[in-house]
Amino acid sequence: MSRFVRIVEVGPRDGLQNEKAMVSTADKIALIDRLSQTGLRTIEATSFVSPKWIPQLADAAEVFAGIARKPGIAYPVLVPNEQGYDRARAVGADEVAVFTAASEAFNRKNINASIDESIDRFRPVLERAARDGVRVRGYVSTVLGCPYQGEVPVSDVVRVAKRLHGLGCYEISLGDTIGVGTPQKARAMLKAVAAEVPMAALAIHFHDTYGQALANILACLEEGVAVVDAAVGGTGGCPYAKGASGNVSSEDVAYMLHGLGIETGIDLDRLAETGRWLAALLGRETGSKVGKALAAA
Amino acid sequence: MSRFVRIVEVGPRDGLQNEKAMVSTADKIALIDRLSQTGLRTIEATSFVSPKWIPQLADAAEVFAGIARKPGIAYPVLVPNEQGYDRARAVGADEVAVFTAASEAFNRKNINASIDESIDRFRPVLERAARDGVRVRGYVSTVLGCPYQGEVPVSDVVRVAKRLHGLGCYEISLGDTIGVGTPQKARAMLKAVAAEVPMAALAIHFHDTYGQALANILACLEEGVAVVDAAVGGTGGCPYAKGASGNVSSEDVAYMLHGLGIETGIDLDRLAETGRWLAALLGRETGSKVGKALAAA
Repeated sequence: MSRFVRIVEVGPRDGLQNEKAMVSTADKIALIDRLSQTGLRTIEATSFVSPKWIPQLADAAEVFAGIARKPGIAYPVLVPNEQGYDRARAVGADEVAVFTAASEAFNRKNINASIDESIDRFRPVLERAARDGVRVRGYVSTVLGCPYQGEVPVSDVVRVAKRLHGLGCYEISLGDTIGVGTPQKARAMLKAVAAEVPMAALAIHFHDTYGQALANILACLEEGVAVVDAAVGGTGGCPYAKGASGNVSSEDVAYMLHGLGIETGIDLDRLAETGRWLAALLGRETGSKVGKALAAA
Repeated sequence: MSRFVRIVEVGPRDGLQNEKAMVSTADKIALIDRLSQTGLRTIEATSFVSPKWIPQLADAAEVFAGIARKPGIAYPVLVPNEQGYDRARAVGADEVAVFTAASEAFNRKNINASIDESIDRFRPVLERAARDGVRVRGYVSTVLGCPYQGEVPVSDVVRVAKRLHGLGCYEISLGDTIGVGTPQKARAMLKAVAAEVPMAALAIHFHDTYGQALANILACLEEGVAVVDAAVGGTGGCPYAKGASGNVSSEDVAYMLHGLGIETGIDLDRLAETGRWLAALLGRETGSKVGKALAAA
């Protein structure tokens, strides 16, 4: 296992975009600024998708312009296309993320395009980013299952991940979007991708919808992955299973990593406190068991 | 990993004893009868401790007498001493469980006895059980940490487990009572115990207070353990961390096992439905993520 694992905090983006309670721009900025004090090295700040798609993140530009960017921390933002890229660049973003799915059915249903067409759509973003010196992270969703087609062939995951890497993404985040995966399957998927893309360029992004995320992460750590996406307070839900949980909580991941003797640079108490602060803001319990246990202890 | 894993359902005992909402005798009987229809092979039915200690289980005799015991299923009951043993036997229990802790501080605080004294107290139970042909399961709690002394030396866990096995317990359940363990630590503890007690005589009983239970179970499955304690609906809390969760949910464990290609004999849909039925009875959300996700899907 890697001696250092970087947690990519996706709460302000992947978390909030699946929360019903609207969060004010000031509170989003406060969230990111708090997260910047926890030792995290990467904080996905927001998404420059169309406000029509995700009203919660309509204030992406104001949020990004408002945060106090701390040296040494990367603040990637999601961009679906060149318009999003323009908006992100206008406020000074120097790292972006693009996304597609390993499932044909998922792409068809969500953006009415095949996998290859979806990649073609953000090719201009990748080309401009390369010229601009902007780092690009690539998300591949539905790597362990799809709400529409069920099983997703590992060969499709490998093909998409390889393509994104070949197009210049410095890191490929492999997402179990609906949280259905189990450890052996997660491990096999990662191994297959790592045979074609260097492990150092891979991240795992597992949702906890079926409670399996930490076990799946453990299996992948044993394969050598060193980047794990997670959301403070387990923020976010699952659009494909109402009431079920989404992102694995950053606190629970950090607790496991520390227990395994793996460094993260994270101050767990401070992170857990931020998770509880956010949960109070959202008017719900924190989705982090560590957050609850530390508060009670 | 073992091809078959037996889940020991502890919801009716370890789960309910940590729930505030009082459950009627009829509902407890209904719960166990429902569980008997899910494919579970072992269901811990109740506890014959003093009603003064645990008012929720004061109706142990009525519950045990009222359930429809299904052939092929074991229904162990907890007994703390000979009085409890007498009460259990009077209603026809043919399997009992005794308990102690690996932490000296925990035993002192809870029963005002050293580990050795606590074992001496239930020695008469073990002797009578041997004469009566009653199988005895032994619980060792605080194997990965103690709310009073913090770290618990692995050597203490090994010593206590070996002693219980030597005294005739057919199975020793190793409990992370406060759910603080992480996978490497859990694995190392199990390995150390398995060097002195056959793996086939060991079970793991991990609480999910810090969200680590499934990852810890995975690590122990890799070491060959084939018996896992869990509670339907993640019933029960943690007396040492108010509001935090206790037992890992049987549904989430079964989901992982099935995903790993391990047989359990369990009908997961039926088990999850029972978990939701129980949660409704307790007036709270099910603590099983699988239970929630299946209901939403």
